[in-house]
Amino acid sequence: MKRILISLIIAACAVPAMCAGTVKSIPFSSVDITDGFWKTKQEMLKTKTVPAVYDRFSETYRFEALKCELSDKFDHHIFWDSDVAKWMEGAAYVLQKERDPKLEKIIDDSVAQIVKNADENGYFNSCYLTKDPQHKFTNRNNHELYCAGHLIEAAIAYKNATGKDEFLKAMCRYADYIEKVFKIEQSAAFVTPGHPELELALVKLYNATGEKRYLKLAEFFIDMHGNNDAERSAGANYNQDDMPLKERSTAEGHAVRAMYLMCGAADVARLRGDKELFAACKRVFDNATEKRMYVTGGIGSISGSEAFGIDYYLPSRDAYAETCAAIALALFAGRMQAMEIDSKYADVFERALYNGILSGVSMDGESFFYENPLAIDLAFGDDNRRHAATQRSKVFGCSCCPPNIVRFIPSVADYMYTYDDDTLYIHQFMNSEMNFEGISVKQTTEYPADGKIKFVCDTKGRKIAVRIPGWCRDYTVSVPYELKNGYAYIDNTKEFTVNFKMPVTAVKANVNVHDCAGRVAVTRGPVVYCAEGVDNGKNLSNVRVNIKGSFKTEPSEFLLPAIKTTGYKDPDSDSLYMPADKKYEKMTLTLIPYYAFANRGETDMNVWLLAK
Amino acid sequence: MKRILISLIIAACAVPAMCAGTVKSIPFSSVDITDGFWKTKQEMLKTKTVPAVYDRFSETYRFEALKCELSDKFDHHIFWDSDVAKWMEGAAYVLQKERDPKLEKIIDDSVAQIVKNADENGYFNSCYLTKDPQHKFTNRNNHELYCAGHLIEAAIAYKNATGKDEFLKAMCRYADYIEKVFKIEQSAAFVTPGHPELELALVKLYNATGEKRYLKLAEFFIDMHGNNDAERSAGANYNQDDMPLKERSTAEGHAVRAMYLMCGAADVARLRGDKELFAACKRVFDNATEKRMYVTGGIGSISGSEAFGIDYYLPSRDAYAETCAAIALALFAGRMQAMEIDSKYADVFERALYNGILSGVSMDGESFFYENPLAIDLAFGDDNRRHAATQRSKVFGCSCCPPNIVRFIPSVADYMYTYDDDTLYIHQFMNSEMNFEGISVKQTTEYPADGKIKFVCDTKGRKIAVRIPGWCRDYTVSVPYELKNGYAYIDNTKEFTVNFKMPVTAVKANVNVHDCAGRVAVTRGPVVYCAEGVDNGKNLSNVRVNIKGSFKTEPSEFLLPAIKTTGYKDPDSDSLYMPADKKYEKMTLTLIPYYAFANRGETDMNVWLLAK
Repeated sequence: MKRILISLIIAACAVPAMCAGTVKSIPFSSVDITDGFWKTKQEMLKTKTVPAVYDRFSETYRFEALKCELSDKFDHHIFWDSDVAKWMEGAAYVLQKERDPKLEKIIDDSVAQIVKNADENGYFNSCYLTKDPQHKFTNRNNHELYCAGHLIEAAIAYKNATGKDEFLKAMCRYADYIEKVFKIEQSAAFVTPGHPELELALVKLYNATGEKRYLKLAEFFIDMHGNNDAERSAGANYNQDDMPLKERSTAEGHAVRAMYLMCGAADVARLRGDKELFAACKRVFDNATEKRMYVTGGIGSISGSEAFGIDYYLPSRDAYAETCAAIALALFAGRMQAMEIDSKYADVFERALYNGILSGVSMDGESFFYENPLAIDLAFGDDNRRHAATQRSKVFGCSCCPPNIVRFIPSVADYMYTYDDDTLYIHQFMNSEMNFEGISVKQTTEYPADGKIKFVCDTKGRKIAVRIPGWCRDYTVSVPYELKNGYAYIDNTKEFTVNFKMPVTAVKANVNVHDCAGRVAVTRGPVVYCAEGVDNGKNLSNVRVNIKGSFKTEPSEFLLPAIKTTGYKDPDSDSLYMPADKKYEKMTLTLIPYYAFANRGETDMNVWLLAK
Repeated sequence: MKRILISLIIAACAVPAMCAGTVKSIPFSSVDITDGFWKTKQEMLKTKTVPAVYDRFSETYRFEALKCELSDKFDHHIFWDSDVAKWMEGAAYVLQKERDPKLEKIIDDSVAQIVKNADENGYFNSCYLTKDPQHKFTNRNNHELYCAGHLIEAAIAYKNATGKDEFLKAMCRYADYIEKVFKIEQSAAFVTPGHPELELALVKLYNATGEKRYLKLAEFFIDMHGNNDAERSAGANYNQDDMPLKERSTAEGHAVRAMYLMCGAADVARLRGDKELFAACKRVFDNATEKRMYVTGGIGSISGSEAFGIDYYLPSRDAYAETCAAIALALFAGRMQAMEIDSKYADVFERALYNGILSGVSMDGESFFYENPLAIDLAFGDDNRRHAATQRSKVFGCSCCPPNIVRFIPSVADYMYTYDDDTLYIHQFMNSEMNFEGISVKQTTEYPADGKIKFVCDTKGRKIAVRIPGWCRDYTVSVPYELKNGYAYIDNTKEFTVNFKMPVTAVKANVNVHDCAGRVAVTRGPVVYCAEGVDNGKNLSNVRVNIKGSFKTEPSEFLLPAIKTTGYKDPDSDSLYMPADKKYEKMTLTLIPYYAFANRGETDMNVWLLAK
């Protein structure tokens, strides 16, 4: 059956300027992170996280499931292929830097199963093929296209890393079949993916193969989303089905689905120069990040539906803030920075990166948060109200977050640089060397431990635009510059230094964020800090911090310094209610980076401290 | 079948001194409230609330249900009889002061239905008799004994008010049948009421009739509760089934059930001089009021289960704090004050009375809160988390709270006075005249608008003990006195004056109450105040009040003065996060008595304001 496009009515709004297809990104494969914070994190990822997640997925039969055989040991699950695919994608990113026959064998064996068990059309989903092959593509919510997207991303990554193209060929066949069923014949029982992700994968597939039909298929899904009779449904914002993307102005529904879909939309907007779609992306980005984002870059405050709350609904203790959602927001921000020169995109990327994404993985690299609360009160653990997890787990039933960490950390440099004919844009700061088609930049820095960065560049004559982070109110640049859209524009220069001063800064939230009223989050550079019970005792919600007080940094076990300051607490009392006074007990308050919370046993934690 | 008493093992603890049966209460029928706050409230009750609740119950067929006939207009409900009974009890208390043939006719007609339709044993429950007479007393959770208790209370009240004893006779028959089935034959399918209330009613029936078997039956239910094989169940604290009452040390489970049960337990402890049971009552009272009570006297913080939370779990916005639970706490406190001379009991009674009970009814007397939140943020009304009701309703599906108001307000003076051979105890302060068996006290006062009270007494030679309220830190007594257990003991005196100074006082909560951290509740005398959006704009959670600032009282439309002070708010901003500073916008903050919130349309409200 043919589907009808309900409307392409465009929201009446000013269409912003966009860099239509002229700005390009430099891939992580051209960036070597040589030392410092990110080298440590990437080493941890390679040596601990990749093997740990593989072991957990093996123990839980996720790899064995690829054989597509019924088993009495386990029951296939509709989203298991995506878990394995994300792990393979991350492993491929590791291989891109350093080949490893053992790791390749795991992937080769998995690819062999996928190739062997795909059906005659190239379709692959281990759960449907094993349990219910007659009903493929009948249930929009059953994650087949989501799994397909992740398999495609993994196949591209593996081809890039190793040159082996069997996986990619199989996925091209699968994509061709999807095109046939969903776009050409329109014979599937639904129109667009219930869990978006395939859209952005198809754009990647177009970039990897040059085959325009994959881009067209991505466009088809983006244009049809919320824009066809069969699926459009007023109020059904969980899957973004309530309106065409071009009409959207707020970030709604399931946060990961919303952000993955917006990634695909941003890609499509950029590649076809679609200013109206770009305007929608901008509106959604602004709403998500200026009204509905935790100070940690976490998004999706509502548990249960894993969804965006209404504006300013950002509860700390009951925060959902899924690790995958923070990653998805970073991916979206990374795409937006290639369309519009505005430092807010890289600012959001950086906020998510150093806080709500890194908090998703333990310091030993082997356990993970699905949800990332901003406060833990163990005293209230056993009442009947939901509270977020207080400890990381090694694996989950729905284990999307661990392999998302696996693929995100090794490819983090994907979002450091963009360029056009005139300018090289430097968005993120890591001790590293980039070499890409004759362009090179060497950053020497201890960032984010320190804000001083020395740049040695060869831009092939281009100007250089260095992001001035939104958190930074005091900085120096060693050469003349012009500030524009949050970037310091510097004439082509071989060598220069910037110094972003990084004083400890107490940050407050908008007055509408009721859970943060009267409270501040202590930050240093891009890093949000928190107080843990193991350092500071209980009743952290009662700890006051003097926002004009003295803060000292000192070495910690968590890569970045700890912060010490004087805290103030109401004294304990036997009374339940008593006349208020201003007599506080002083205490030494120790704050650690938020990303490092819950690494020393189960303990209270609080990001938002009372302001004194 | 015979039930086995599992244990009478007593919790090893010091047994406190109690006034075993020597202290008696003076009933409200001997107290005329002549003018002022309570005269206004009782007039409102008589002229507005009694008719309004009657009309709502008539419209919803609760009175018609007494006919015990199936109807296609409505479906009988297991607890409807209790709603009607509580209304009749309250109406009888009104009649006690002033006969009213119209009101009596309603009750007479209802009583006639009850008498006519009771079964051959005297059993009456309109729902079971109509729909399922074969299954009476088979389901412990189906409220039959709870309804029976309320019917008994109504029958006693009506006899006292009018001298008519048909209702009381019918209820004695019913109580006799309950004794037979539950105590003598033990032939019911359960042992004790799932929803306690009958226990305290049976003690009242004993007091009304002098028939000791009713007291013995009350003792049976109290002693068997949580103390028999069939019902005792570890962890089943919702119905207080987890342990014998004598072992209990915390207030657990459904707050109304728990407090009604403790009322019965306190009555039994007093009448049989049971020090161990009294000690348990004391422990539960202390836990309920020193760890688990809102500043408003509300209890039962957990929605869903309508239950006590763990210690210090007292969320403001999601407070449950059912009106009935505050009333039940007051009833329990009133019983405790007759067993131990300690002002904490009357303090708790007063706290509940002027706050969490009165908030249950609108200023016009015609609509009601079931739950009584301590904060309302309308901005967050449509997220997917539970929040308390923001507006009073005229009737509920489970409409227990409105008729509880109907019976509580006219009988409030039941808890003003107790006496023994030596001393007359004055617990509460209202402009009133009491005359009881030769004892008389005239209180001339504007309390709680003002703390000055002139007493003219004839105590028949007794000393006088006047409660010094816990909230009061500055007072004068016009005659010599000795302070003991929170009471000022005065030698027999004809006339004296006390003056409880009532400055506006900011109160803070224990450090363990995380929802109140950094916040204060503004109080004056026993009355807790709140800020409403209609006076103070939105984002009340962000309003700071200087606890050492200047507070002015001024007349309000809510019987007691409003309070004006300077408030401080963070300025609005477009940013979601920004560097913290101490620059606040000043505002004139208007506070009104908490009991009067939500009388001017749907608007934000906050009791706990940020402390500056």
